[in-house]
Amino acid sequence: MSETMVETRGLFMVFTGNGKGKTTSAIGMAMRAAGHGMKVFFIQFIKGDWKYGEMGAFERFSDTIDFHVIGNGFTWKSENLEKDKEIARSAWEKTKEAIFSDEYQMVILDEFTYLLLYGMVDRKETLAVFKDKPEHLHLVVTGRNAGRELCDLADLVTEMQQVKHPYELGVVGQKGVEY
Amino acid sequence: MSETMVETRGLFMVFTGNGKGKTTSAIGMAMRAAGHGMKVFFIQFIKGDWKYGEMGAFERFSDTIDFHVIGNGFTWKSENLEKDKEIARSAWEKTKEAIFSDEYQMVILDEFTYLLLYGMVDRKETLAVFKDKPEHLHLVVTGRNAGRELCDLADLVTEMQQVKHPYELGVVGQKGVEY
Repeated sequence: MSETMVETRGLFMVFTGNGKGKTTSAIGMAMRAAGHGMKVFFIQFIKGDWKYGEMGAFERFSDTIDFHVIGNGFTWKSENLEKDKEIARSAWEKTKEAIFSDEYQMVILDEFTYLLLYGMVDRKETLAVFKDKPEHLHLVVTGRNAGRELCDLADLVTEMQQVKHPYELGVVGQKGVEY
Repeated sequence: MSETMVETRGLFMVFTGNGKGKTTSAIGMAMRAAGHGMKVFFIQFIKGDWKYGEMGAFERFSDTIDFHVIGNGFTWKSENLEKDKEIARSAWEKTKEAIFSDEYQMVILDEFTYLLLYGMVDRKETLAVFKDKPEHLHLVVTGRNAGRELCDLADLVTEMQQVKHPYELGVVGQKGVEY
């Protein structure tokens, strides 16, 4: 196998575990790729609606990173589960389009595993999409409890293990650190 | 303790372990903080001299992130150990200045643990500096084998555990993913 062939292979990467660093790592990866001139699609499947620091950061990459946050004001604890599912599915449809659009060199699904855990998307279909991703595309999925099937499929899996967390010491989430 | 008091406390964070995500997480954290308008000092204690993708990315934050890479062309495997130590120490002096300058809200020492592991800097002095950092300052240290003393001192420690890595599959480091 020539080096060129190896280098053009897109990797499927999973950042999981209960520790801090999954989303920050995804952000770092997106911006580093953008620094190489790659085109990136980044979608956050998040639970809050406050103003994330990453929004201010992503604004600086608006020419090369397409940044999306699903469900502004949307929470997984919504009492309207059907509405939640609808939002999640529509975001998933958008993501699939990005994966197969040939427009991006990297597609990042931040905190996506929650959709699998809460049955918002079909597990089988999801795995099939990831498996059939374009060969050149780098695909990144983050979130807790990624599960064995996802990890089996991935080329690279890092588990962010929480060794020590300030929440344990009674320190609240801080701007610029936690969000 | 009032919430305001809690929120202004700077955290000492350590990203360690043998898995991928330490540096990318540090980059993401820097850029997210910058997105909040924070001033960041980011120094990489790295081993190579090629053009990293992060350089292109950090260029977009030149107004708010001071980005430094020590030892262009410098390698820890240099045969001139004394010269290596000199470079490392000078970078460490610069970092200490940044920590105590009151100019930054966040200081990030990427791959710093190598300096401790290879005896490039004094362990006791290093720990004292981290312990005495300005209260408001967020301090981030990354690198393998952070060690117990550093972790004891930290507010937050995440261990990036390698579950699966493409190197094992014979895939070489790729632009935009590994660097």
